[in-house]
Amino acid sequence: MISKRMEKIIESGAAMAGLFTAGDRLAKRFGAENVYNFSIGNPNVPAPESVKDTIIDLAQNMPEQALHSYTKPEGIPDVRKRIAEHDRKKFDVDLSEKNIFMVAGAAAGLNAIFLTLLDEGDEVIVPTPYFGEYKSYALSCGAEIVEVPTQPETFELDAREIRKAITRRTKIVLINTPNNPTGVIYSEESLRDLADVLNEKNNDLGIDITLVSDEPYRDLAYAGARVPYIPKFYDNTIISYSFSKSLSLPGERIGYVTIPDSVTNFTEISAGMVTACRVLFVNAPSLIQRVAAVCIQDECDVEYYARNRDAIYEGLKEIGYECVVPQGAFYLWLKTPIENDFEFAKKAEDYQIVVVPGSAFKGPGYVRVSFCVSHETILAALPKFKELFDDIRAGR
Amino acid sequence: MISKRMEKIIESGAAMAGLFTAGDRLAKRFGAENVYNFSIGNPNVPAPESVKDTIIDLAQNMPEQALHSYTKPEGIPDVRKRIAEHDRKKFDVDLSEKNIFMVAGAAAGLNAIFLTLLDEGDEVIVPTPYFGEYKSYALSCGAEIVEVPTQPETFELDAREIRKAITRRTKIVLINTPNNPTGVIYSEESLRDLADVLNEKNNDLGIDITLVSDEPYRDLAYAGARVPYIPKFYDNTIISYSFSKSLSLPGERIGYVTIPDSVTNFTEISAGMVTACRVLFVNAPSLIQRVAAVCIQDECDVEYYARNRDAIYEGLKEIGYECVVPQGAFYLWLKTPIENDFEFAKKAEDYQIVVVPGSAFKGPGYVRVSFCVSHETILAALPKFKELFDDIRAGR
Repeated sequence: MISKRMEKIIESGAAMAGLFTAGDRLAKRFGAENVYNFSIGNPNVPAPESVKDTIIDLAQNMPEQALHSYTKPEGIPDVRKRIAEHDRKKFDVDLSEKNIFMVAGAAAGLNAIFLTLLDEGDEVIVPTPYFGEYKSYALSCGAEIVEVPTQPETFELDAREIRKAITRRTKIVLINTPNNPTGVIYSEESLRDLADVLNEKNNDLGIDITLVSDEPYRDLAYAGARVPYIPKFYDNTIISYSFSKSLSLPGERIGYVTIPDSVTNFTEISAGMVTACRVLFVNAPSLIQRVAAVCIQDECDVEYYARNRDAIYEGLKEIGYECVVPQGAFYLWLKTPIENDFEFAKKAEDYQIVVVPGSAFKGPGYVRVSFCVSHETILAALPKFKELFDDIRAGR
Repeated sequence: MISKRMEKIIESGAAMAGLFTAGDRLAKRFGAENVYNFSIGNPNVPAPESVKDTIIDLAQNMPEQALHSYTKPEGIPDVRKRIAEHDRKKFDVDLSEKNIFMVAGAAAGLNAIFLTLLDEGDEVIVPTPYFGEYKSYALSCGAEIVEVPTQPETFELDAREIRKAITRRTKIVLINTPNNPTGVIYSEESLRDLADVLNEKNNDLGIDITLVSDEPYRDLAYAGARVPYIPKFYDNTIISYSFSKSLSLPGERIGYVTIPDSVTNFTEISAGMVTACRVLFVNAPSLIQRVAAVCIQDECDVEYYARNRDAIYEGLKEIGYECVVPQGAFYLWLKTPIENDFEFAKKAEDYQIVVVPGSAFKGPGYVRVSFCVSHETILAALPKFKELFDDIRAGR
């Protein structure tokens, strides 16, 4: 028999799993080429050319044994150094090799952070809507997710709601910026408010909440938007980053966790993190660690996503839909013109459109429209979105 | 503060960590080139040429987006199929794609199995001596390791000792064959005895123990030895395999878990395993999954290890040491000529020799001698081993 823990994880995922499979169902109904599938969150632009060149270069020129050998659990020293240098300049902060921990993707990174910090019964506060897998990571550790709302309409952090949810068992507040599914980048103001609340509650309750910022979409930001560097607002912040989107390498499982010097008990936490990496995945994949370090300056074609974002946002607004402006990531958060998001998503299928009901992210009344699709798909889908909208308005 | 769980993991590792760092200490004392370091368990032969060729071929010829995209959590269907075909022929058993789960290395594989099966307070029986990291995997799940002795001198499984240790909380018996640190391949006879005990206890206690066989050294077997295919002896067996040693790819984190049809509640267990892969590491690294499938017929230069094994075993025996014959893996288990293995390892340092005290594996009175070193190191070290032996015998 499977463990009770695993039963809970499966149960928590099962409610949502079905919501992501409408694409397949619809492909059978209309033929795959006739379906506008906005339900998938996978990068659709290729990795930059430098990734291919670096893989070939390393394979051809580096002795196999060195290339494929175990690395330290926290990663290859030169790789960590290169990343620290890059981020030091980019964010104008003090960082060195010792602050960077290479991880086998963001999921492994979050699991490692959770294993380092969480005991049975501990609480992780997450603003809704949110990426459902966070719950699985918490359940793996026997910890609990405490959901709090964001601000209505804007989906900005709501520090007052977070304050209400904090208890002595609160170990982590987990935020995700740019956000999946809303595309919102949390503002400096909202982060200042959050920091005030966390500091206040730490003092009141004699606790020390870790703010964990999950930032796999950090380099997908549009129209000049910049993602604030969270440790500048709150000392006890750990960042999880992934190259899945910036280098279009989601299958390769490579990212890093930043633990700045300002984190409470830095020495102990970083020792815990090294151990967690060793125990969970031994080390991040060695070849790809090197590729990430060489290619960190490069980026996939973010302009492609930007063009998609403009087309779908402007197009849907013009039709009459209410949408949150996607500041980052490759998701548009659309308010459903009929209240029930399941009903709307179901009705959209009749127009060959696949979107994910917001309820899958604990955000009812909205759907997530992924724009990591071909630009042509967007252009071709807009008239269908219009038909759908007009029919709903006309009560058809 | 780090979690209590992590405190326990660090504490359990700390006792041993120091035992693996003597090499660095000695390198400072004598100069690295003057140290015979037999403490490290890393492959020292390069990956087969086909690995390099396949990496370059895939990078050059496969579209980047397909090559680096997410795969299913359980792995790429064609990769799983290829591995199932290979093992079906090799072991003459019934296997297909659905029995193979690609994992990000054996550690991730064991973590996934544990997450699928173990709850807080469950027990995992492990014969001693054993690879200490097993304890970390169990602690991560809040489970406990129950250590049982193997047979004296031979280090074969001792089914009677395992019988004594089984309780209603026993979920897993975890074996490792060929064994790290002893080099023993568990015999068919000992596996039959083990199966009898497990079946008996399952009936008596109304439980269903899973036998987990960790086999990263399966393809390093010497002098015609073969590693028995464990599910042939006991139905409810799950195998964890890694390409780290057979393809000398330890840093790339690639392996697979085999869940045969005969496993109790196959459907439920395999659904749990898929979920565990998704939650812990999303998918095994995608490029290297493909490399493993293409290169599965190939092998690193196992003959090199075989030659090392003969040289060190014969050499040490001739000097007068008592050693267990290494049937597989790249470790020799040497009975220390002074009773205390710490003392012996310490004394060996004066002869520029680094070995790991058996106590690090809960096997006192022995040391582990890794022979994944250059052949020249072995030849040069043997006279030093002799000096050491003679001096101990002479009471010097």
